[in-house]
Amino acid sequence: MQPLPFAKDLSGALTLGRERDILAAMKRMTKEITKPTLLVDQEIVSNNIKKIAEKCVRQHVRLKPHFKTHQSAEVGDMFREFGISGITVSSVSMASYFAEEGWEDITVAFPVNRLEIDAINRLAKKAKLHLLVEAEESVRFLDERLEGGVDIWIEVDTGYHRSGIPDSEKREIAAVARAIVSSTKLRLRGLLTHAGHSYNARGKDELEAVFRDTADRMAAIELALREQGIAKVEISVGDTPTCSIVEDFSGVDEIRCGNFVYYDLMQYFIGSCRLEEIAVALACPVVGIYPRRGEFVLYGGAVHLSKEHCVGTQGQKIFGYVCTLTEAGWEMPLPDTYVSSLSQEHGIVKAPPGVLDNLRRGDLLAVLPVHSCLAANLMKEETRLIQSLTH
Amino acid sequence: MQPLPFAKDLSGALTLGRERDILAAMKRMTKEITKPTLLVDQEIVSNNIKKIAEKCVRQHVRLKPHFKTHQSAEVGDMFREFGISGITVSSVSMASYFAEEGWEDITVAFPVNRLEIDAINRLAKKAKLHLLVEAEESVRFLDERLEGGVDIWIEVDTGYHRSGIPDSEKREIAAVARAIVSSTKLRLRGLLTHAGHSYNARGKDELEAVFRDTADRMAAIELALREQGIAKVEISVGDTPTCSIVEDFSGVDEIRCGNFVYYDLMQYFIGSCRLEEIAVALACPVVGIYPRRGEFVLYGGAVHLSKEHCVGTQGQKIFGYVCTLTEAGWEMPLPDTYVSSLSQEHGIVKAPPGVLDNLRRGDLLAVLPVHSCLAANLMKEETRLIQSLTH
Repeated sequence: MQPLPFAKDLSGALTLGRERDILAAMKRMTKEITKPTLLVDQEIVSNNIKKIAEKCVRQHVRLKPHFKTHQSAEVGDMFREFGISGITVSSVSMASYFAEEGWEDITVAFPVNRLEIDAINRLAKKAKLHLLVEAEESVRFLDERLEGGVDIWIEVDTGYHRSGIPDSEKREIAAVARAIVSSTKLRLRGLLTHAGHSYNARGKDELEAVFRDTADRMAAIELALREQGIAKVEISVGDTPTCSIVEDFSGVDEIRCGNFVYYDLMQYFIGSCRLEEIAVALACPVVGIYPRRGEFVLYGGAVHLSKEHCVGTQGQKIFGYVCTLTEAGWEMPLPDTYVSSLSQEHGIVKAPPGVLDNLRRGDLLAVLPVHSCLAANLMKEETRLIQSLTH
Repeated sequence: MQPLPFAKDLSGALTLGRERDILAAMKRMTKEITKPTLLVDQEIVSNNIKKIAEKCVRQHVRLKPHFKTHQSAEVGDMFREFGISGITVSSVSMASYFAEEGWEDITVAFPVNRLEIDAINRLAKKAKLHLLVEAEESVRFLDERLEGGVDIWIEVDTGYHRSGIPDSEKREIAAVARAIVSSTKLRLRGLLTHAGHSYNARGKDELEAVFRDTADRMAAIELALREQGIAKVEISVGDTPTCSIVEDFSGVDEIRCGNFVYYDLMQYFIGSCRLEEIAVALACPVVGIYPRRGEFVLYGGAVHLSKEHCVGTQGQKIFGYVCTLTEAGWEMPLPDTYVSSLSQEHGIVKAPPGVLDNLRRGDLLAVLPVHSCLAANLMKEETRLIQSLTH
């Protein structure tokens, strides 16, 4: 993994923080953009981090943010200002990258991949490492092959059915816990779950229900373990939708949400964020205008945005909302205008005549992505940190 | 864009071409793979190129292969053995990359992006450049801003409705043609279309019908232009489904298909290729096994395969077929076993008990991707050129 080579054009203006300088820098920057470029609005990012970080402080819960969304040393550094010292990642490669960047407490929130045991051993010498297991088989493997001590979390499936031991299988979870406790290298740290089924919820009430159900299931396991003589362990949860909305985190010790740093249209459709909280937009040149079809074409396709889509209220597939991009940042989305399909490099946008009539080939527009984690991953080499004046 | 850093482990064995050496090299290589890695089977690639290249020679049609699928200098070089000297790409960035690699005749098959005019002018000094226009506005822009001569193709929309002037708009196409002819810098080379609607066709008869319809529409425009006094121009078409199946290319001068170099499940579902002709597979470690759910989990997700899916005969979403990976290469897909959903790093595979009972965490399996262009783009930094013995 390469660090994000963020353009540094704006650093002077940002340090000075003077409106005129930012405007001038933005103007220069939008002139320099000639092809799809992911813009990251530093102020929105900072506000998004602040909101969750302060809520965690109020709720006495540890925030261990998932860095799989931005995968960037620079954006990672913005978390340090809010007192964050431990992070979550989804691969050993990503953990190694952030360990190089000075992060010393890292959870790899992915079932341990035994083929990477050599990389894991190297990493454990650099950082305090937390690993996930979801089977006794993996505990035995780690006990045999680890060269030093690591913290272990048992991954629990509380309803998402991706990975982890189902929360109903308390006997199996207890057996894994005992195997960990009896190892000299492994330290049983807690129970961890990703309630990814929250992505099917819509709105505050449904999200709160998912969070409460998840916390209750985890608490029931923790109690069952204690009844079997295992000392109290921590509970870690971590999806962005519930962590964004829920105000009462009681029953959990740690949250690991990640997407909230940027948010995206998927989160907006779920109800986790407002459009104004989406911190990334893909700047795209207009390359074709087809008024007869009610469409125009952007240079910006599946290799920039990914093929993830939302479903609109009319059942239509939405691959992005389209915004005007000015020297002051991106505006709110143009009404009734959305990316309706993507091929490798083309983005087809449906738009009303009022939009089409005012477009010219060579205009630069901004697309709010459906899934910022995938877009940021694709755009690693073409990302710019900006500070807009619109939000 | 970076060149693909293909592992060179196999080069010795490949040069010797002795079965035992290849086996030994494959064995070493599969042992070295610890995380998702795209395997490219050199022999299948070579056969795929040979089949289309020889058909083009027989049919007296120029093959100008689209390099957007592999985006790789090494794979590009394999085309030279079949006499290919001109190539197609879908971005100015990709054109610049291949120009550096010594390709001297390059079509950028994407509506000209005027914001990249400086890069275009640099490129035109290095290679014979072909650009696409789909509006008079773009012709005027190029005439004003180009520093040297380039070949121009008018992009025609023959039914895909992505970009290009609709073939029914003969007056508009003629106006663009006249504007090109009257420019001193632009040379009208021909009419170009991408019949991407062939991806909705299924089987030989439907694909032949799309090809014939496309060729007929293009011929009608060419005739209309000649009737207006414009000298005969060339006709270029280029989707992989029709170009793979059609044996009679009469009526066209050039084909620009690209995906055929690797093929993928999408092409297999259309009927463009056999499973044995798919030249890429993603090697993925098994990280979780859930017999109660009838599923297992691979380290291999949307950041490796993309979110593209096929729809199976039962209406199920298929994100990849799963194959056994041995020292001799990947086998045919395991029956009734497929990737049913993807998150960022996880691939969930539905599988029958006979498969699940024989799996262990740490096994390495191979996934045939749905869309090889997107998977190869995502895996640029983790690709290996291999030669298997299974095909």
